[in-house]
Amino acid sequence: MIIGKVVGSVISTRKNENLVGNKFLIIEPIKSMAHAGDRLVAIDNVGAGIGEVVLVATGSAARIGCGMESAPIDAAIVGIIDEGVKLE
Amino acid sequence: MIIGKVVGSVISTRKNENLVGNKFLIIEPIKSMAHAGDRLVAIDNVGAGIGEVVLVATGSAARIGCGMESAPIDAAIVGIIDEGVKLE
Amino acid sequence: MIIGKVVGSVISTRKNENLVGNKFLIIEPIKSMAHAGDRLVAIDNVGAGIGEVVLVATGSAARIGCGMESAPIDAAIVGIIDEGVKLE
Amino acid sequence: MIIGKVVGSVISTRKNENLVGNKFLIIEPIKSMAHAGDRLVAIDNVGAGIGEVVLVATGSAARIGCGMESAPIDAAIVGIIDEGVKLE
Amino acid sequence: MIIGKVVGSVISTRKNENLVGNKFLIIEPIKSMAHAGDRLVAIDNVGAGIGEVVLVATGSAARIGCGMESAPIDAAIVGIIDEGVKLE
Repeated sequence: MIIGKVVGSVISTRKNENLVGNKFLIIEPIKSMAHAGDRLVAIDNVGAGIGEVVLVATGSAARIGCGMESAPIDAAIVGIIDEGVKLE
Repeated sequence: MIIGKVVGSVISTRKNENLVGNKFLIIEPIKSMAHAGDRLVAIDNVGAGIGEVVLVATGSAARIGCGMESAPIDAAIVGIIDEGVKLE
Repeated sequence: MIIGKVVGSVISTRKNENLVGNKFLIIEPIKSMAHAGDRLVAIDNVGAGIGEVVLVATGSAARIGCGMESAPIDAAIVGIIDEGVKLE
Repeated sequence: MIIGKVVGSVISTRKNENLVGNKFLIIEPIKSMAHAGDRLVAIDNVGAGIGEVVLVATGSAARIGCGMESAPIDAAIVGIIDEGVKLE
Repeated sequence: MIIGKVVGSVISTRKNENLVGNKFLIIEPIKSMAHAGDRLVAIDNVGAGIGEVVLVATGSAARIGCGMESAPIDAAIVGIIDEGVKLE
């Protein structure tokens, strides 16, 4: 998993039907992480909001681990990092 | 997922039979995204056209999430980003 | 998927038994693609030859999409790009 | 797999329910490894502690190989490298 | 797959039980390959030794293609490149 900050969201009206009902958040991995600065889009599995620092799972883990086995999802926010945790 | 722009298409007459009937579009990830500028080829699951900004799923999510479990597909356009959305 | 050129082949006599009967071709992704210039080895699913420009699928798509579910294959040539297609 | 050093941990109270009970450790791949210096977060499958040098599996191997098939886990510590082993 | 040279091995006494009995070899991808120089750890499926040039499969292909579906393995040596083959 990587740690990133939610920096925005994106709206897609015309999309794969298995994606309906999901929020698409833009994640920016924090500086010390792999792919630092390189943003990705993740669905939200835990009710995260913009500005929060989150744990993101990628690959089949996002899809299967969030109970959406047949959705075209390759990244999901799976935890919100507790405030006060030092990361960099 | 990543956000990219459809910049072209590619034709392959001689191909794996499980790919027949798919359009192959060339995607250029937008600047702020991971792998910015590094193009990839994705099948189109939502009727995207050249110039449109799209959401691309990669890995097993592309294959399974688009109902093509037994096709050699590792990237698929799964949504079209609504116009007017600020991305960079 | 990525687009690359077949630049060579490689022979492995001592190998995993599920690989027997496959040709191993060396692919060089074209310049505009992700991982440009970084070569990889793919099995050939469509009868590609050296010098041809091909479509390469990676990950589980290569294995499952080519009907070799139990072989240790993570990249496969799944299409030959038609001549005359402009790519760069 | 890659070899990395456990350099910290992270706490997430609000998380996907399939993650409950796991420790999240921050791994820094050692210098000679792929993605050197680019940290990632892994769950701990072997009782590793901060400062230890460990073997990390990524992708579906982390989830399935650690008996957590339905958890959104894409990286796991699966071994502790014996002391005295020269790595760089 | 990628081609790399076996440059060392690593010992892990305390490890995931599904890994018991495997040798962990350190692979350095050859210069022309993707991730050139970035080492990774692979299990050995074909009896490779230090100094040999090998074919390495990564991802689920390593695990499933080597008959270790439930082991946390994401890279495996699946072939030894024949001597005399020119690679760079």
